[in-house]
Amino acid sequence: MTTVNRQITLAARPVGFPKASDFALVETPMPTQEAGQFLVRVVYLSVDPYMRGRMSDAPSYAAPVAIGGVMGGGTVGRVVSSQHADFQPGDFVEGMFGWQEYALSDGKMVRKVDPLAAPLETNLSVLGLTGLTAYFGLLDICDPKPDETVVVSGAAGAVGSIVGQIAKIKGCRVVGIAGSDMKVDYLTNELNFDAAFNYKTVTQYEDELKKLCPKGIDVYFDNVGGAITDAVFRRINPMARVSICGQISQYNLAKPEAGPRLLSILLMRQAKAHGFLVFQFAARYDEARAQLAEWVRSGKIKHREEFINGLPNAPRAFLHMLAGGNLGKQLVKISEP
Amino acid sequence: MTTVNRQITLAARPVGFPKASDFALVETPMPTQEAGQFLVRVVYLSVDPYMRGRMSDAPSYAAPVAIGGVMGGGTVGRVVSSQHADFQPGDFVEGMFGWQEYALSDGKMVRKVDPLAAPLETNLSVLGLTGLTAYFGLLDICDPKPDETVVVSGAAGAVGSIVGQIAKIKGCRVVGIAGSDMKVDYLTNELNFDAAFNYKTVTQYEDELKKLCPKGIDVYFDNVGGAITDAVFRRINPMARVSICGQISQYNLAKPEAGPRLLSILLMRQAKAHGFLVFQFAARYDEARAQLAEWVRSGKIKHREEFINGLPNAPRAFLHMLAGGNLGKQLVKISEP
Repeated sequence: MTTVNRQITLAARPVGFPKASDFALVETPMPTQEAGQFLVRVVYLSVDPYMRGRMSDAPSYAAPVAIGGVMGGGTVGRVVSSQHADFQPGDFVEGMFGWQEYALSDGKMVRKVDPLAAPLETNLSVLGLTGLTAYFGLLDICDPKPDETVVVSGAAGAVGSIVGQIAKIKGCRVVGIAGSDMKVDYLTNELNFDAAFNYKTVTQYEDELKKLCPKGIDVYFDNVGGAITDAVFRRINPMARVSICGQISQYNLAKPEAGPRLLSILLMRQAKAHGFLVFQFAARYDEARAQLAEWVRSGKIKHREEFINGLPNAPRAFLHMLAGGNLGKQLVKISEP
Repeated sequence: MTTVNRQITLAARPVGFPKASDFALVETPMPTQEAGQFLVRVVYLSVDPYMRGRMSDAPSYAAPVAIGGVMGGGTVGRVVSSQHADFQPGDFVEGMFGWQEYALSDGKMVRKVDPLAAPLETNLSVLGLTGLTAYFGLLDICDPKPDETVVVSGAAGAVGSIVGQIAKIKGCRVVGIAGSDMKVDYLTNELNFDAAFNYKTVTQYEDELKKLCPKGIDVYFDNVGGAITDAVFRRINPMARVSICGQISQYNLAKPEAGPRLLSILLMRQAKAHGFLVFQFAARYDEARAQLAEWVRSGKIKHREEFINGLPNAPRAFLHMLAGGNLGKQLVKISEP
């Protein structure tokens, strides 16, 4: 076995949209396992919009990655060796092992996964935090009812594509907003969204929403913020619920932008906007995962993963995802299962 | 009895802050009562910030007052004559009889009030929609817990002053924001707020909030919006709840102002902002009114009403309130009880 562990570290705090040079590929000695620990070889790494926040030292809900520190991230891996009673060599595990080829763990916040129950990579997509985010952010925050109109921004992304399909399962009219004609086609033809539009070619968002949501908008699942969200707010119905999952349009601005004041709309429409992180629902992950797995098995939820190979390409995969290049879940394949 | 009914009508849609000339005092014939109706002589008229919205034809939750139409408003009055089985001459009633000396009613949305149970005017303040707004907007929207920090803007106004006192009853640390040193004194010395500041003399709102709310802000009851609210948002804690009751800073702008984007803060803090109108809680008014009356009787809630006499002075009372000139509830006394 190799004695070297390769890692991607944060080389510089990005200004605006991150660059490849904000990351560094480093080689460190393989960590030494102690009693109560096990060593994991990382197989898949998830790259997600929230990671942009961790690269910044602006105040947020979690501490930033230190300069020179290993980038954090959700992964699936395989136990190589173990001095931990609950984990055996060969076990597949899901945990926050970060942007590296190997990681030590004490087993805390690590979940064993069954590679026969579902494809391994789905533990980072529809059956992982991505799917759980969609599940709780839509169902718990917004409580969508049959025949209500649900709008999803970032609709072809990992979370958005699942949100829309859950809303369809709940009997809603579902309208997606995405950044390419190919994505719009995917949403309406593959995932059975009722309608979708490309925000890069449509110029009058509010007019488009008026056309596609003739009965107004009851639920808005927001991944993007900015001008798209401003337009959606102007079309929400009385008693609307807005789930704020992400604000990706704002993450790469060199300085914060101003926008219309949206609280007046919440007041006039008796509506709520609720920011959430999936972690607040941790006690109910099993319930949600079982339901998601059932929907996947029965074909009610389709999912899609895109892979880029090799740890050195993780920054490229991240930047590709951040620019909206992916359809569904963007993963990095670090090693063979 | 007089054969003339005096009314205040909307003469012009205001641009920016309303002027006296936006209103007109008109004389009309006393309305003719028919079967199933009764005639009310208005005693007290409530003037409230929401009325500014009705003067505008911008989209809102309620239709605007027509040019030439009588200004709407909550009132207490006395039945003069009746052909309605449930209402007798001499009865005191609360209803939306508007800015006029007399009104016909069919009894719908009218509540009989007992002038011996509580001072008549309190049916428009602490025991009226004002108190109910404070009660539901704080307790139902924000669910404040003991030792949490509650910030109230527009704190010396009719709703804000009750909100703060209910929060004190619930064991919270309560910080008020108001527009004069006299109001700040009233809040801290009369109403037992833990702290308050004058937003017209304090220039660094966020620093002041940091000082007065050392453990951050768990609940924000917002009557004003704008720069004050921007500062409060920057100090909210994880899982904070924001009740959006009013946005008075925005009502008189000739054109909407831009502001910092607040949804990112809701996301980072896993917080919610919820706009509401008291009417959505109509099924529970009796429960709330009984509780408010008990708090008033036991001295836990103090309330204060200011009166301006005579229907012709109703516009002046409204403009005075809109400019923040009042402490507690601003009423117009239209006639003797």
